[in-house]
Amino acid sequence: MKYTEFEIISKYFKRNQKKDVNEIKGIGDDSALIKIPKNNILAISTDTLVEGTHFLKNISPEDLGYKTVAVNLSDLAAMGAEPKWTTLSITMPESNNIWLKKFSSSFFKILNKYNVRLIGGDTNRGSLSITLSMYGLLKKQIALLRSNANIGDLIYVTGTLGESAAGLFLLKKNIFIKNVNIRNYLIKKHLNPIPRVSEGMALRKIANAAIDLSDGLIADLDHILNDSQCGANINLNKIPISKVLIDNFQSQNYLNWALNVGEDYELCFTISKKNIDKLKIIKKKFLVNFTCIGYITPIEQGFNLFDNQKKIIFKKKGFNHFD
Amino acid sequence: MKYTEFEIISKYFKRNQKKDVNEIKGIGDDSALIKIPKNNILAISTDTLVEGTHFLKNISPEDLGYKTVAVNLSDLAAMGAEPKWTTLSITMPESNNIWLKKFSSSFFKILNKYNVRLIGGDTNRGSLSITLSMYGLLKKQIALLRSNANIGDLIYVTGTLGESAAGLFLLKKNIFIKNVNIRNYLIKKHLNPIPRVSEGMALRKIANAAIDLSDGLIADLDHILNDSQCGANINLNKIPISKVLIDNFQSQNYLNWALNVGEDYELCFTISKKNIDKLKIIKKKFLVNFTCIGYITPIEQGFNLFDNQKKIIFKKKGFNHFD
Repeated sequence: MKYTEFEIISKYFKRNQKKDVNEIKGIGDDSALIKIPKNNILAISTDTLVEGTHFLKNISPEDLGYKTVAVNLSDLAAMGAEPKWTTLSITMPESNNIWLKKFSSSFFKILNKYNVRLIGGDTNRGSLSITLSMYGLLKKQIALLRSNANIGDLIYVTGTLGESAAGLFLLKKNIFIKNVNIRNYLIKKHLNPIPRVSEGMALRKIANAAIDLSDGLIADLDHILNDSQCGANINLNKIPISKVLIDNFQSQNYLNWALNVGEDYELCFTISKKNIDKLKIIKKKFLVNFTCIGYITPIEQGFNLFDNQKKIIFKKKGFNHFD
Repeated sequence: MKYTEFEIISKYFKRNQKKDVNEIKGIGDDSALIKIPKNNILAISTDTLVEGTHFLKNISPEDLGYKTVAVNLSDLAAMGAEPKWTTLSITMPESNNIWLKKFSSSFFKILNKYNVRLIGGDTNRGSLSITLSMYGLLKKQIALLRSNANIGDLIYVTGTLGESAAGLFLLKKNIFIKNVNIRNYLIKKHLNPIPRVSEGMALRKIANAAIDLSDGLIADLDHILNDSQCGANINLNKIPISKVLIDNFQSQNYLNWALNVGEDYELCFTISKKNIDKLKIIKKKFLVNFTCIGYITPIEQGFNLFDNQKKIIFKKKGFNHFD
């Protein structure tokens, strides 16, 4: 049985989520209406995922539902915002009930985990693509901006880098390594990245600049450097690489994944040395590691990578949808 | 020359628009940041336009840039909100500079006309489709909701209905009528609908329910009736049809266009009889007509169309993307 647009929305996307006093009108009118609490500002992020560009053709509806939300949560995390609401536009070739059921279940599972309410959107016919806008709140109007890095700031990343890209590589090239558990683990890291929402919110008060690592460390850190008009020295040996990658792959592979491929959705942030004690206290709250990989320099010194003392020649590339 | 995603955004979508004190961060960070003035609520509408579904394959980039904005402005108009900000996600097969230049010029022209600032978005590769989210403000938290119609309310529409659908018909079927000026006029009505933004804002204080007419009067009014748990009696002879349509087409054609095809982006609203004097005052401010086409009845009486005294049998269909 095929459903109309209205039926799809009411069958799959009108769910009883936890109530929110600031939501005056959710799904079902010409627009949603929300109230912003006093002394808060609104953070808005928008991301489109297109089949073949942002996800592989054979992705499961569950993984797509998860990833759609996770990448937008990650954008808000990079501002230090608390995610609150979302709108979804989904374009698909036909209304496939089984697909919609699986997609929407997974979509609401991650929304509910992060206390985010779906307040609007539409469904359309066309090639599969999904646009999500995510709305978050920032108390006292303090945000982690890309433009706030200062000379002398230490540069940190959360978690480890490169595992998501390793998973993408295994999936894309259809490569089977000996240990199937490790293969599945890396693919899961690619398909189900964990947005660093609480970490971003905690860092908001003590860090200066931040960005989430979607396009690889080099391209993403370069945005901070450009916007803050700074340079950086990064020590390759400090980049956190998991034991799984070190044990199973060559260093040129995993460094390339960490530096140039990305999709880790970890945070890269800069912090003044005077706040390091506060950072140590915050670190204790989280299971994930925060690793110092270098420091911010004057713009004249440029963006440099060092392997111990040796300067490495590299290209700033990062992922580009129109390559 | 092909541009990367970052270059496209900075070349075509970073423009010097009129400043706005409530915009803390626009394009160029992980999310946009906005402040909502005291006693205001935020209205959010999202619409996706997909090639082949919402616009014809041969649409010009200028017309697409205009329409993308107009349909979202129309959603906010139907709430009575003042449009303020927008985010754009554009997916296209390749980065075509001439197309982008024309699209973005037209896009910013209509944004500037309505004082709307672009605060974020992304560009992606894939089949042509555009998702816009539009953000507006409502003072004193009064909005025109679909659910606010009351029994006895008069039902009005702005402007005339059916011309946009006539234009779509001429375009789609490649029909050339004798008078080329009339053909061009109707096609322009289809491609460049005028969102009733000021009208919606003025009606907010005196009307009860409203919706914008995108899917045809029957389907759209039916949303008000369902959400307000009411019926309606509509007099077919009162539906405002332009002289152009009456002089050039059969009545079964233009009534079908008005009732079942839509894309007029006029407002349909309900208003208590006690506010009719206030409506008369408001009407004087606008060039567009407001026409009473019927009234709201108890739900038991259902949704009825009358041709003079004769009840007309009709189907509630409206446009469905998955038909």
